[in-house]
Amino acid sequence: MSRQQSSAPTMKDVAREAGVALGTVSKVINGLPVGESYRIRVEEAVKALNYRVNNYARGLKGGQTFIIAVMVPNLLNPYFSRVAHCINLELAARGYKMLLCSTEFDPVQEQNYVISAEQQKVDGIICLSYNPELEVSEDVPLISIDRYFGAKIPCVASDNYGGGRLAAEKLVENGCKNLAFLRIGSVLTNEPNKRRDGFINGCEALGVPYSLKIVDDGTPYSEFEAFLREHFHGGKLDFDGIFCVTDSLAHQIIGSLRTMGLRVPEDVQVVGFDGIRSFGDLEYTCSTIVQPVEEIAAQCVEMVLEKDRSRLPALVCLPVSYACGGTTKG
Amino acid sequence: MSRQQSSAPTMKDVAREAGVALGTVSKVINGLPVGESYRIRVEEAVKALNYRVNNYARGLKGGQTFIIAVMVPNLLNPYFSRVAHCINLELAARGYKMLLCSTEFDPVQEQNYVISAEQQKVDGIICLSYNPELEVSEDVPLISIDRYFGAKIPCVASDNYGGGRLAAEKLVENGCKNLAFLRIGSVLTNEPNKRRDGFINGCEALGVPYSLKIVDDGTPYSEFEAFLREHFHGGKLDFDGIFCVTDSLAHQIIGSLRTMGLRVPEDVQVVGFDGIRSFGDLEYTCSTIVQPVEEIAAQCVEMVLEKDRSRLPALVCLPVSYACGGTTKG
Repeated sequence: MSRQQSSAPTMKDVAREAGVALGTVSKVINGLPVGESYRIRVEEAVKALNYRVNNYARGLKGGQTFIIAVMVPNLLNPYFSRVAHCINLELAARGYKMLLCSTEFDPVQEQNYVISAEQQKVDGIICLSYNPELEVSEDVPLISIDRYFGAKIPCVASDNYGGGRLAAEKLVENGCKNLAFLRIGSVLTNEPNKRRDGFINGCEALGVPYSLKIVDDGTPYSEFEAFLREHFHGGKLDFDGIFCVTDSLAHQIIGSLRTMGLRVPEDVQVVGFDGIRSFGDLEYTCSTIVQPVEEIAAQCVEMVLEKDRSRLPALVCLPVSYACGGTTKG
Repeated sequence: MSRQQSSAPTMKDVAREAGVALGTVSKVINGLPVGESYRIRVEEAVKALNYRVNNYARGLKGGQTFIIAVMVPNLLNPYFSRVAHCINLELAARGYKMLLCSTEFDPVQEQNYVISAEQQKVDGIICLSYNPELEVSEDVPLISIDRYFGAKIPCVASDNYGGGRLAAEKLVENGCKNLAFLRIGSVLTNEPNKRRDGFINGCEALGVPYSLKIVDDGTPYSEFEAFLREHFHGGKLDFDGIFCVTDSLAHQIIGSLRTMGLRVPEDVQVVGFDGIRSFGDLEYTCSTIVQPVEEIAAQCVEMVLEKDRSRLPALVCLPVSYACGGTTKG
């Protein structure tokens, strides 16, 4: 076949040049597995014809762009970057691309990203948002992680309630007699707020006294230090077990406790939430309620690609587990 | 003014409704700082008019989409996620959005992302690529991190050569008499290969003997273990200082050394490269040559947005520093 083309080469031209089926070309272009020899032939044909995948043409024809926009609040927190990583793998396995946006916890940026994604005609959006007023159109499928926006926007979350309860149970199992829950974050209804409710339920079921310190986003960390000092008498804290709403907060609290001369876990045991592992040895960085990140990612991808949206549940809660990371006795 | 619009509202309509200058609307929409009262007025006007930013219209008018595509090989490695994080902050400060793609080290996915980004008419691409055959068009400004594609594609990298030399110097300063360099990665020319050259230069300048173990991507890690065993006689290693091409490899090597009954840093000192810090306390996870990630990000953004591309240098190398992370004696 002649390599001269009067107009831009199509996927069909590539298939003809490579001597393979159209589906094989499509698989190679979308990064799906095909036999190595097929892949080489397609790649050579793509080069020979200088073929460029036309997403717009593809979008206009099949009504699909094979792109899913993913929004996370931040990339430095290993929980968020791992969520994005796992979603990326799930999408790639299905021939989709991820376009990732980091909103830096800024509601205006987040709203702009959603509008921009909608306009770029992505096939769907997966959004881990802290913005209670986020506006989404119903034209583009959107799956929310952790925040419940109402029955029309399906939400995927960990079993936050069960995780809060598990944290209380594990602290008591390890000998704690008096617990505390510390949280920084939006006081508005969202899934992670259930960590507190589950924790209270666990304490009450076990008959263990507890204190709460819950502050809104933007409150300086010194409020927690003041809270710890209020409960510090004669070299001892009023409580011997602390559940922190995230691993990130747990690390800050552990730092403060050590500064006060308290030993973790000997004097005070601390449990976080997220399941962050250290970079080098993949050990848990503190005792923690582990979020099932792979499962959350798989569920989000399955739901965002579901054609019949009427079949989607409003909320999916996935089971968490406990891991000892050295800041509890077991 | 009437809120009924015969056609879709424009940015001008928003400015009129809010009673502010057009520039103020633009700033709010692009997430740039404005006075809080202005921001509220603009946001209310945006809502009242149901205004949607039209990137395509904007693109067609000003020739700009205000979107930069960023490609990294992976999101689990904190070095890569931090590069993306810093680029995101730099772009946001200039009213640009980042669309991030994670290529999972797959050259086909990477090539697809570049083609897709070019077609979506992004204003530029910043790419941390391991694909020596990546094809890029000259239509869209592209800045490469770490890989030098030739004089036409500006490249931003750490001073890898200087970093390799610094690693040798620091190991010798801490008492090492016999060094080794370990590397896994593409053997093709790229910037990180200069870490080896700088290391050799440092050893030769200081008159210190050295061994090299350099293997190509995809080689199983067991090759390094075999190398260590070859140099292990009577409970001692032939070398007492090891420079690893990344912190990631350093952590694996440290694990192997400990399994062999060797103490780090007492028996063998180890230096990595990247400057990865632990999540909890922000300590360096091993002794390391620290890449200046903020500066790399700032440089890439400045260069990708530069209108006069003839002014761009082919290669910018930014200074690195040394940090002790407990796997060396100082």
